[in-house]
Amino acid sequence: MTPTLPPYGQSLSLLTDLYELTMACGYWKSGLAEREAVFHLYFRHHPFGGGYTVACGLGPAVAFLRGFHFDESDLAYLRGLRAADGGALLDPAFVDALGQFEFRCDVDAIPEGSIVFPQEPLLRVRGPLLQCQILETALLNIVNFQTLIATKASRIVEAAQGDPVLEFGLRRAQGVDGALSASRAAYVGGCAATSNVLAGKIYGIPVRGTHAHSWVMSFEDEAEAFEAWARAMPNNCVFLVDTYDSIEGVRRAIKVARGLRERGYEMLGVRLDSGDLTELSREARRLLDEAGFPDAKIVASGDLDERAIAELKQKGSQIALWGVGTRLVTAHDDPSLGGVYKLGAIRGEDGSWSDRVKLSDDLQKVSNPGVLQVRRFSLDGEALGDVIFDERRDLEQLPFDVPPFAESEDLLQPVIRDGLCLYEPPGLPSIRRRAAAQKALFPQEALHKGYRVGLEKGLAAQKQQMMDRYGVSVAAGEA
Amino acid sequence: MTPTLPPYGQSLSLLTDLYELTMACGYWKSGLAEREAVFHLYFRHHPFGGGYTVACGLGPAVAFLRGFHFDESDLAYLRGLRAADGGALLDPAFVDALGQFEFRCDVDAIPEGSIVFPQEPLLRVRGPLLQCQILETALLNIVNFQTLIATKASRIVEAAQGDPVLEFGLRRAQGVDGALSASRAAYVGGCAATSNVLAGKIYGIPVRGTHAHSWVMSFEDEAEAFEAWARAMPNNCVFLVDTYDSIEGVRRAIKVARGLRERGYEMLGVRLDSGDLTELSREARRLLDEAGFPDAKIVASGDLDERAIAELKQKGSQIALWGVGTRLVTAHDDPSLGGVYKLGAIRGEDGSWSDRVKLSDDLQKVSNPGVLQVRRFSLDGEALGDVIFDERRDLEQLPFDVPPFAESEDLLQPVIRDGLCLYEPPGLPSIRRRAAAQKALFPQEALHKGYRVGLEKGLAAQKQQMMDRYGVSVAAGEA
Repeated sequence: MTPTLPPYGQSLSLLTDLYELTMACGYWKSGLAEREAVFHLYFRHHPFGGGYTVACGLGPAVAFLRGFHFDESDLAYLRGLRAADGGALLDPAFVDALGQFEFRCDVDAIPEGSIVFPQEPLLRVRGPLLQCQILETALLNIVNFQTLIATKASRIVEAAQGDPVLEFGLRRAQGVDGALSASRAAYVGGCAATSNVLAGKIYGIPVRGTHAHSWVMSFEDEAEAFEAWARAMPNNCVFLVDTYDSIEGVRRAIKVARGLRERGYEMLGVRLDSGDLTELSREARRLLDEAGFPDAKIVASGDLDERAIAELKQKGSQIALWGVGTRLVTAHDDPSLGGVYKLGAIRGEDGSWSDRVKLSDDLQKVSNPGVLQVRRFSLDGEALGDVIFDERRDLEQLPFDVPPFAESEDLLQPVIRDGLCLYEPPGLPSIRRRAAAQKALFPQEALHKGYRVGLEKGLAAQKQQMMDRYGVSVAAGEA
Repeated sequence: MTPTLPPYGQSLSLLTDLYELTMACGYWKSGLAEREAVFHLYFRHHPFGGGYTVACGLGPAVAFLRGFHFDESDLAYLRGLRAADGGALLDPAFVDALGQFEFRCDVDAIPEGSIVFPQEPLLRVRGPLLQCQILETALLNIVNFQTLIATKASRIVEAAQGDPVLEFGLRRAQGVDGALSASRAAYVGGCAATSNVLAGKIYGIPVRGTHAHSWVMSFEDEAEAFEAWARAMPNNCVFLVDTYDSIEGVRRAIKVARGLRERGYEMLGVRLDSGDLTELSREARRLLDEAGFPDAKIVASGDLDERAIAELKQKGSQIALWGVGTRLVTAHDDPSLGGVYKLGAIRGEDGSWSDRVKLSDDLQKVSNPGVLQVRRFSLDGEALGDVIFDERRDLEQLPFDVPPFAESEDLLQPVIRDGLCLYEPPGLPSIRRRAAAQKALFPQEALHKGYRVGLEKGLAAQKQQMMDRYGVSVAAGEA
């Protein structure tokens, strides 16, 4: 069976900007389709004004690549596309050729859960120009979003200082797998569980949930609603207490919890969803402790993100679990990662490599030429700096000093060779552990104030030369 | 065949927050599962600080409802869920009952493309409490996002003052159908086309696209790249001119276009993707006109939204087509619509209705009780005001004066009765036309500075009474 991206059962080869197909057609007609090319997928700025990014989305990207094919319905649709003059937009012989498409690229990637920095290729695709080109949009779609959300989750989990963070974003997420992929990435970034049951089923993420206001509103009063909940779900009793009055709600929950205890069950906690969460949680904690429920946890939800959680922590709130929804799954304060996919090199007619840059007046937007790899140096388990270099030349001259006994690791690893997948996708829990372990490699200061990433000196010089032709300048060693 | 939400081929019944299922289990165990209930899906504030919202997502929501069923793999997953104490989270007999789930609700909805306002139910679900509850999250997921994006698109299209707006957001959208549903909603909101080929295939949206920087970078120089493009795609020639220098790029495009003309084809235009778009577009326009290409259009792209477009228009830019991506499909400045789904009424054991409100210190957050409908009054094709009223009592007392010859229309229309779909989904072009026609019903002032929406006086009084019990007050007539 051809693997496809869950939960899709169909060909996703048309999940692409039209121009990838018109360009593919152009390459095909111009005799360039088979020229070997190298593209790099990277971003230019950390999201959220932050100092680090958590790579995510490789697993689904590989599933997409493995399932990549044009089926008859795709081809029929493409044959029907018209240009402005009413003629066929795509040459019918080209569309026929797409029907024979067999993926033959090499893909190297930084594993999911890695901490990454601007300009570092998360993914490198090398192979026939037509094939590399046609994959651009879908790879960006998958990797941009999951990397964004894994990073947001990591920031939120950090703010929660060890308290579990639950992802509750499905209702505000951007469509079905806006939600599914957000749940996946949030888990990688460190969330403990999701409310999204389908994400639980597909990805094996722990699912969590209690009840909503509508449960309380379905009964004549809150006391009756809590009683009924305790009868129906004795082993899953978290009471949502803010339907009418949060503190009264806590008192009612305690009363019901006493009866529950007599039947041999413990209330797990109460959930606050509105109001002054600091004051309410402190009062709720006091009431629960006094009543003999010191183990009952206070769960909070309602427009939370890393800033809100940090503030609540700082004010001494007594919240032990955090339900985070909208602001996590939409990456509310910075809802897109500007990942790009740029040509680094292409072979000429004679088979020799020709390196390429995309120029811009904005230096950050000038792409790096070559066939790039990233080497991370570390000492005693602490990351020191990353160097982007051209794999064909290896790393000749470091852009910064590294102590003599430093260790190093090349971040891009082989994933696909000549279309064959070498990659054994790690389970999601193992990706999640990697994300946590990776973060521990970096001193707090490096993650929040800046970490050294440089271009190998020869590469920097070459880039400068290429820019000189157009009057743009770059400082040596700047990535 | 059971219809499912494209492009999914599988059961999406688990696309829900876990608490919908634990509550459903609770209702089932408490003998409330079959009680007739009414839920309303509505939002509380217009997105983007705006004055109107374009309803969208009903078609996919109905497809979701029609395909709603629990398959064996869903049930197996649910049976395996554990509570904190290791026991089954959901009663196995309840899970068996889900296997027999047959949708029996009534659904009424405001048609897609309608202009809607805070507190107005976009969707009303009436039926067995368990069934209404279990649908909440997925309906919110689908309707919230599409409504958000249709509204954003409408605002952007308005700013473009009649110029076509093309949606180019796939690479920055939130996952596969974060992109697909954004393309659908953007088209409803008035975009002329999308770059997303799969959205074209599934939804029949026109697709558009030309070439990227990588096309230019794949050749030795820009002139060669443009020549090759003209040979490969003579009938689809828009040249992206900013890879190296935009104005030089325009000159090269003109040169190639002359040759193209000799072969009987016309260049369609040039695309600017960076730099000062006002200056560049004016200079490009001048060069094109001078060279005898007055019909070649200037397309612009690059971080555009309604504000950027309005500013470019105001500064006299010469842009005729707008490619809008990231900021449209992620609703960048307000990336979630806070739609909610609240219980309005439930029948008691004796069969009589009992109305319900969700209270809050924040008046905007107090829900409206009852079985709600919205009546829109208009005169001479101009909307005057909307009244939210309880359908069981009809509209007795208007909250504002309406001229004697005003016409009126009830916005919520029957979509599903007793689980049977009455709804013939209109084609997307017809929804798109409705959105445009609806907008024309409202004076500009109403859309941007405020439009009257009130609660029928009896409903307002009843709501007040219910709130009085808890010491919250509401001004009569306030929605």
